Amino acid sequence: MSQSKAICLLSGGLDSSTVLGVIMKEPNDVKALTIHYGQRHEREILSARGIAKYFGVEHIELEFKMPWGGSALLDSKIPLPKNRDEKEMSKEIPATYVPARNTIFLSLAASFAESEGAEAIFIGANAIDYSGYPDCREEYFKAFEAMIRKGTKCGVEGKSIQIKAPLLHMTKSEIIQLGISLEVPYDLTWSCYQGGEIPCGECDSCILRAKGFRDAGVNDPLLQISNINGK
Amino acid sequence: MSQSKAICLLSGGLDSSTVLGVIMKEPNDVKALTIHYGQRHEREILSARGIAKYFGVEHIELEFKMPWGGSALLDSKIPLPKNRDEKEMSKEIPATYVPARNTIFLSLAASFAESEGAEAIFIGANAIDYSGYPDCREEYFKAFEAMIRKGTKCGVEGKSIQIKAPLLHMTKSEIIQLGISLEVPYDLTWSCYQGGEIPCGECDSCILRAKGFRDAGVNDPLLQISNINGK
Repeated sequence: MSQSKAICLLSGGLDSSTVLGVIMKEPNDVKALTIHYGQRHEREILSARGIAKYFGVEHIELEFKMPWGGSALLDSKIPLPKNRDEKEMSKEIPATYVPARNTIFLSLAASFAESEGAEAIFIGANAIDYSGYPDCREEYFKAFEAMIRKGTKCGVEGKSIQIKAPLLHMTKSEIIQLGISLEVPYDLTWSCYQGGEIPCGECDSCILRAKGFRDAGVNDPLLQISNINGK
Repeated sequence: MSQSKAICLLSGGLDSSTVLGVIMKEPNDVKALTIHYGQRHEREILSARGIAKYFGVEHIELEFKMPWGGSALLDSKIPLPKNRDEKEMSKEIPATYVPARNTIFLSLAASFAESEGAEAIFIGANAIDYSGYPDCREEYFKAFEAMIRKGTKCGVEGKSIQIKAPLLHMTKSEIIQLGISLEVPYDLTWSCYQGGEIPCGECDSCILRAKGFRDAGVNDPLLQISNINGK
């Protein structure tokens, strides 16, 4: 039986690294795609490299700068929200929202997928713990699939590209429990929006990660390493 | 009355330059976006700069390389189709098709539009003279609009971004006649896929341009300049 081909968007964060772990459970032919888009936390790129190497998958990096800003992740003059609880986070689309980011990522992945003859794009989007991003919702992914069916050679020839977001309806602690069962090396991942050498512990991403590990009843191996290196 | 804000995708070719001419007829607040994606005919970027300068619009350039190839426009080892008539061109999606190119372009333009608060993206797509590209069809643009409504902050807040392709149903000669009436400086545009100093005259793009000028009953000012410079 032939392996199915897939592209996995890999940021180097906890979610996309877990998705890669999920894919690697099956004998799929997967390639990882990481995008440098001028993000404040370029540190995550190092993690993406480490994760791709750990899983032994071909890793493609693509780099550009979006000169228009409009996000706290692109423009260091816009402050990151800090020390918010989940209730506060869920009130509005946050300053870390990057205009059309997942659309750009999925478009590039769709181009890669079509040129490789891949049938699926995997993305670590999650809509439960943090529902603030419009481009992390199932109805958006369905609309993207419909669009790409119309706008690609493979689509008009009847070979559609599926968008798969296996973590979409899982809590962060469920994701972590799944990842641990798959031996995803969370010490190699990076979530902090601030970048730097050690996670800040205060940005939304750090707070959600910490809560996830707490709820899962396990220690975050990244923090253990950071504590050793940082003290 | 406030001006409406728009982003115009500007390749430097005949069609997108005409679209910019169409927009400039009205008092719109328009910014032009040009994308270097590793195209064989990087020469068109110089034309985009010239056209943006001529019309006096702010011009943003964004650059990346798509390492996956899969197109005669990305990979110089894949030969360009040459000396084909329109009937031959219409038979199949050509080797110059770049996987998901317009989706990538429109995604980047959507990000730019959202960050600027622009309501429209203009694109010089054309479905009449050359129907080979799936991402130059009305149903594709409608699907893109629907997707971006779901996947952006402005979309979920009810401010949709429209995709406008004013040349979609025009022939090349109609486009040229329109452009001449708008004083679009066609001597500054570039269409040839081959790149180089002088248009090759043999690629699909050169052939369609030549036929357009012939049918419009006017000389192509670019060729007049090329002939002077080249001889």
